[in-house]
Amino acid sequence: MAHQGGGPSRGRGRPRGRSDARARILAAAAEEFAERGYDAATMRSIAGRAGVDAALLHHYFGTKADLFAETIGAPLRPDLEIPRLLAGDRGQLGESIVRFVLSRFEVPEVRTRGVVLLRTAIGNRLATPLLAGFLSRELLGRIATEIGGDDAELRAALAGSQIAGLLITRYVLQLPGIATAPADELVRRVGPVVQAYLVAPR
Amino acid sequence: MAHQGGGPSRGRGRPRGRSDARARILAAAAEEFAERGYDAATMRSIAGRAGVDAALLHHYFGTKADLFAETIGAPLRPDLEIPRLLAGDRGQLGESIVRFVLSRFEVPEVRTRGVVLLRTAIGNRLATPLLAGFLSRELLGRIATEIGGDDAELRAALAGSQIAGLLITRYVLQLPGIATAPADELVRRVGPVVQAYLVAPR
Repeated sequence: MAHQGGGPSRGRGRPRGRSDARARILAAAAEEFAERGYDAATMRSIAGRAGVDAALLHHYFGTKADLFAETIGAPLRPDLEIPRLLAGDRGQLGESIVRFVLSRFEVPEVRTRGVVLLRTAIGNRLATPLLAGFLSRELLGRIATEIGGDDAELRAALAGSQIAGLLITRYVLQLPGIATAPADELVRRVGPVVQAYLVAPR
Repeated sequence: MAHQGGGPSRGRGRPRGRSDARARILAAAAEEFAERGYDAATMRSIAGRAGVDAALLHHYFGTKADLFAETIGAPLRPDLEIPRLLAGDRGQLGESIVRFVLSRFEVPEVRTRGVVLLRTAIGNRLATPLLAGFLSRELLGRIATEIGGDDAELRAALAGSQIAGLLITRYVLQLPGIATAPADELVRRVGPVVQAYLVAPR
């Protein structure tokens, strides 16, 4: 079909060029992350693969974590939220984390996309180490540093184990009882567990 | 290649016929479970599909739970173990459950097969409701009945959420801290959480 204003330059020009560069960067990022893992892939190596300047990556996508989140279509950014929660009342940290995650998953589009990501992270052999690398570096590692102590890494991972198990049994397996429980009830029951892992006196 | 003792009847007779029937039953079970789900599939419907008598299924495989476990190649049978744990010291129930699961997963062949099952249960859209149906019926439902109370179903599922999360973060995602922790340490830290979900005073 012919459109008014069509011609040799139709669909070209700045908007299309920009969109091309973005798409090229995202494709390069997906390949680079998959091949090298989250830690080893760098903004420079992704830029090289995409054939653009590294500054353009930062301009379009921000940090490496931002670019990764964009690449996988992350529906929520716990790595951006956790500093705010850690800065709040430490006596309510576990509850705050559970409330944040569940409140986001109650939004249908977030839940749909989140379930796909959970399925992929666990079911796909190539995706598993990539997602685990991102979670370790950008989320659990930061929590461990903040809460401190010799066993901080283990305690952060245990908190993560309860959150992961909650999301999987509620939204993926949809087990009776937990799939239909009000989010507030789950915050009340699971919050203290996450709290005890993260900040209980040893 | 010709073998000594070969001939028209080679490979026939009772051992082969028996093995054929077993294979036919397992194939029929896999199809029937996949199409109808764990609850709706019956020993009778599976026998019908395999073209054998239902008594033969029980003779070869025992209960429906046994046949299902055989079909999916289950490396451990929590549904058979949980009655023994529930009959033991209720003050140690959480710890006993965590110790049972981790001690089995420390066996390499169990772990390898268990990881495949976890990946499949969560990553495969068809397998998810099937495994969830089995867990609900044969494991969590029984635990809920035993512990009693209006919220027993939710509490059993919450305990399941922590166990599932522990297995996934330790053996599938292999998160730092939790992947390398001694099993005893995890029993000590996670046992009380499962205990509190299952038998804490309300």
